[in-house]
Amino acid sequence: MPKDLLIAVTGWDPCPWALRLADALPGRAIVTEPMLDAGEADPRAIAYVLAWKPDPKRLASLPNLEAIFSLGAGVDHILALDDLPDVPVARIVSPDLTARMTEYVVWQTLHHHRRGFAYAASQGRREWRERRQPAAGEVSVGMLGFGTLGQDAGDVLKRLGFDVVGWRRSGEPVEGFEVFGADRLDAFLGRTDILVCLLPLTPDTRGVLDRSLFERLRRDGPLGGPSLVNAGRGGLQVEADILSCLEDGTLKGASLDVFEEEPLPADSPLWEAPNLFVTPHCAAVSDPRALAGLIASNIEAHERGEGLRDLVDLGRGY
Amino acid sequence: MPKDLLIAVTGWDPCPWALRLADALPGRAIVTEPMLDAGEADPRAIAYVLAWKPDPKRLASLPNLEAIFSLGAGVDHILALDDLPDVPVARIVSPDLTARMTEYVVWQTLHHHRRGFAYAASQGRREWRERRQPAAGEVSVGMLGFGTLGQDAGDVLKRLGFDVVGWRRSGEPVEGFEVFGADRLDAFLGRTDILVCLLPLTPDTRGVLDRSLFERLRRDGPLGGPSLVNAGRGGLQVEADILSCLEDGTLKGASLDVFEEEPLPADSPLWEAPNLFVTPHCAAVSDPRALAGLIASNIEAHERGEGLRDLVDLGRGY
Repeated sequence: MPKDLLIAVTGWDPCPWALRLADALPGRAIVTEPMLDAGEADPRAIAYVLAWKPDPKRLASLPNLEAIFSLGAGVDHILALDDLPDVPVARIVSPDLTARMTEYVVWQTLHHHRRGFAYAASQGRREWRERRQPAAGEVSVGMLGFGTLGQDAGDVLKRLGFDVVGWRRSGEPVEGFEVFGADRLDAFLGRTDILVCLLPLTPDTRGVLDRSLFERLRRDGPLGGPSLVNAGRGGLQVEADILSCLEDGTLKGASLDVFEEEPLPADSPLWEAPNLFVTPHCAAVSDPRALAGLIASNIEAHERGEGLRDLVDLGRGY
Repeated sequence: MPKDLLIAVTGWDPCPWALRLADALPGRAIVTEPMLDAGEADPRAIAYVLAWKPDPKRLASLPNLEAIFSLGAGVDHILALDDLPDVPVARIVSPDLTARMTEYVVWQTLHHHRRGFAYAASQGRREWRERRQPAAGEVSVGMLGFGTLGQDAGDVLKRLGFDVVGWRRSGEPVEGFEVFGADRLDAFLGRTDILVCLLPLTPDTRGVLDRSLFERLRRDGPLGGPSLVNAGRGGLQVEADILSCLEDGTLKGASLDVFEEEPLPADSPLWEAPNLFVTPHCAAVSDPRALAGLIASNIEAHERGEGLRDLVDLGRGY
C-alpha cells in the first residue's frame, strides 16, 4: 500500500502546503480533500494527515491512518474531536514558528511596558506629554505556559532587562528563570505586571483567563496596573471578563491575538475596548516554506522505524 | 577652593538630579541655577556643570569650570553653543540609558515589521484581515549610527532573527555584523528595509534624513516599502520630506521620537501623518537614579588624576 499524505484543513488554502510537501517528499502522492471527494485518490492509501481544524468524519474515513500532524503549535483543534482515530498526534516544533511567536510577544510586551496606548492617545490629541517610564528591570513579565515558545520569548525579554518568571504545570525548572509550578499560581500572579499567556487549551485550562485571575495580578507595580497578552487560544479567555476588567481598570491594557469565536464577530465589543490591541490570530503563522521540510523529515524518521518526534501526550492534552 | 557642582538644565526639574548627586557625592555642594541667582552659592566655586541644553551665558559666568557633563547621550545641545568654555565635555554612557533606547528601537522596529499600523486600522474598521508576514530573516534592519546604542539594539534585533547591518562614519568593524563606512552609504541604504537612525547631530549630519536618502532605501523588500525609526535628534530629519514621503508611499511608515522643534507644535501636520508613530522624546530618558552614580564616579576618577571617561571628541562633534 502506498503511504499517501492528506492535507485536511479548515479555513486555509491547502495548495501551498501540498506544493511544499510534494517538494519535500518527492515520489509520494499528496492529496487534498477535494481530490479525495472527486475520487482522484484512494482513502485507503492515506497514511498521514496534516491537519488544521480537520473534519472528524474525514479522519474516521481513513482506514489505514498512521499519524496526524498538527499544522500549528496547538493541538486542541485535533484532540477535542469526537471519535478521534487511535493514532499518534504530532505537533509542530519549528524554529520559524517559535521565532514568529517571540516577535509578537516581545512587540506587545514592549507596547504595554512603553505605554503605547497612552502615547497613541496623546498623539491623537496633538499632546506632547511624557509618561513616567520604569526601567525594564522594575517590571515583571510572567509567562503563563513556559514551554518551548514561552522560554524563547522569555529569553529575549530577559535580554531586554525584564524580570521574567515562568509558570508551568509541572514546575520543571528552566535554567536562568524562576519557575512556578501548579501549586504556586497565586505567587506567580502576585509577582506579575505583564502576563503573557501561551498555555495549551485543554479541559483544565479552558476559561482560565478570567476576572478572578486578573484580580490576583500585581496591583502596585510600576506601570500602574497589570496587562495581559494572550497568544495562546481564545478558549483560554473569558472575553466578558477581559472587557469589564479593561473598563474598570483591573487590567490596564491587553493584547489579544486569539478569541472565543474566530473570526472575531464584527459586533463584538472587543473591537473598541479601551487599551486593547486586536490581531487576527496572526501571532505565529504556520509558513509552509519553513514547516513542510520538518514534517517530511518526521515522516521519514517514522518510516525508518525511529519513531515520531514531537508527539503529543494524549492524556495530558498537549 | 571647593569643587562644587552646578545642575544647569533647560526644561527639566533639576531637583531629582540634585538630590541623587548629593547622595552620590556626600560632603560636596550641589547647586542649582536658582540658588546661584539668589546668591546662595559662589560661581567661582563651581568646577563641574551637569548640563541639558544649558544657557551659554551661565557657562561663561563660571571662571573655574573644569568639565561639563551632558545629562543625555547626545552632546549637540552643548557643542552647538556660542562661546563654549574651553573645557572637556563628557557624555553619558550608561547601561540604563542604552537599555531604554534598545527597548524603544526593538518596539518600533517590531511595530513596522509586524504591520502594527495596518492591524490597528483593521481593528478600527472591525475587520478581521491577516496580512502577509515575512520572517524576520527576510527583513533587513539598517542601523544608521552604529556606536554603543546602535550595537546594543542591533544585538537584540539579530537575536530576533533580523538581518541587521550597521553604518558608521569610520567603517570600523563590529564583530557579528556587516558594517558599512562613510563611502558605502548607498550600498547600506539599498540593503535596508527598516532604517533606524541613532546618529549624533553634527554639522555633517544635520538634515541627512531627507527625501533623497529615503528614495535610496530598498524598495522591493518583503514589507512592500521601507520604514524609518528616528530616535537620534530632530535636527537630523527634514520633516517636510518625511511627511511627503509618508503621503506618497516612499516611506511605508515611520516612528519619530525627536523633532526639529520640541515640543512638537500642536499645529504640526506630523501629528496626523499616515502611518507615523509620534513619541515626545522619551525613547531613552535620563534617569537620575541610574546616572548620578556614574557621573559621581567619573568626577572622583578625574580628581584622583585618572582622567575623565567618555570624553567627547570636540573636533568630530560626538
